Amino acid sequence: MEKALVVLSGGQDSTTCLYWAIDKFGHENIDTITFDYGQRHSIELESAVKVAEVAHVPNIIVPINTFGFLGGNSLADSDIEVKNELDENTNLPNTFVPGRNLIFMTFAAAYAYQKGIKHLVTGVAQTDYSGYPDCRDETMKALANSINLGMEAEFELHTPLMFMSKAETVELAQKCGAMDALAWSHTCYNGKFPPCGECPACQLREAGFKDAGVLDPIFLRGK
Amino acid sequence: MEKALVVLSGGQDSTTCLYWAIDKFGHENIDTITFDYGQRHSIELESAVKVAEVAHVPNIIVPINTFGFLGGNSLADSDIEVKNELDENTNLPNTFVPGRNLIFMTFAAAYAYQKGIKHLVTGVAQTDYSGYPDCRDETMKALANSINLGMEAEFELHTPLMFMSKAETVELAQKCGAMDALAWSHTCYNGKFPPCGECPACQLREAGFKDAGVLDPIFLRGK
Repeated sequence: MEKALVVLSGGQDSTTCLYWAIDKFGHENIDTITFDYGQRHSIELESAVKVAEVAHVPNIIVPINTFGFLGGNSLADSDIEVKNELDENTNLPNTFVPGRNLIFMTFAAAYAYQKGIKHLVTGVAQTDYSGYPDCRDETMKALANSINLGMEAEFELHTPLMFMSKAETVELAQKCGAMDALAWSHTCYNGKFPPCGECPACQLREAGFKDAGVLDPIFLRGK
Repeated sequence: MEKALVVLSGGQDSTTCLYWAIDKFGHENIDTITFDYGQRHSIELESAVKVAEVAHVPNIIVPINTFGFLGGNSLADSDIEVKNELDENTNLPNTFVPGRNLIFMTFAAAYAYQKGIKHLVTGVAQTDYSGYPDCRDETMKALANSINLGMEAEFELHTPLMFMSKAETVELAQKCGAMDALAWSHTCYNGKFPPCGECPACQLREAGFKDAGVLDPIFLRGK
């Protein structure tokens, strides 16, 4: 069986992908990587660690100090407030970190290269993509191509959630046995537990569980 | 006139590209970016700063702590010795940092995105590429495609040295007036000044100047 590396942010989508990957590649073939890129809230990293723990899979937290240095967006720069509206100049949400997923996947590939891991798994989805162009299928395919050329490698990049609605993602999570771990996944842009329920990320998550007719296990979690 | 960002390592090729870019885009439209990724030798960063100073162009040094953390290659991990032979397993030099140029160009694009700079310039060349797959034309084209899709941008990626021999690069440097700055550029893998003359990088540089029939200005520099 070939090995797979899951990019685990500790959010709902990557947690679901982790269980999808366990199902597909076998539990013993799974490794996970989490990026500490100066997230506003340390709760995100804690969630990733906890999810990996619940799933009994290895996890490495890899630092990237560059986004924080470059600044200019609300997810990596705590001086900037998260806005729900699109930026007037770029027509993108101000939570958009230019190139974030490109960088994550390239570093994930560099790590996988060293470890002899062939499959890369990420939870990006273009359906509910919130206006992030680096989550689209076309971008991911182009990126896989440039990574394989640049590293002379043959990685397969898996994006199981790419065309799923949030409700379908919830159904997949149920099917793969991800619900226990999802109780520990983190989504809220405001870094709150219990979730604020008001930021775009919370609302997207809430709508997905509602559409699937499933109770979000995060509300069953003790503190 | 549109703006251009030159990725400036402080080496011979990027220094030459800087002057090529000044010539093409106009001196006032040039910005430079240098990555502090845990190079073995601080002399590389010092050279980049000095070259930008000699050229009277702005320079920003951007940290990337990820390669050093991932380790596993001789350029970013000072515990590993630089070898002249190819690695038995990968058939690549052990100075190969998987994904290095992919990461550099993506972060350069993220910076350019924020600054409204349209043109990206890098000194990679596939002619003398020392076995680095991330320096090839095909890789750079694929990368530009994934960056433009991922950032919803229209960057133009320029690689003026791509198909030049080292001798032709020297001739270009002369034509663009880069010789004064080249005196301060750094090439030696062993971080020596005067250059060791024995590592693959020194030998490549030496051969290029010799073939072009030009004295390397680095030997005219005082300490």
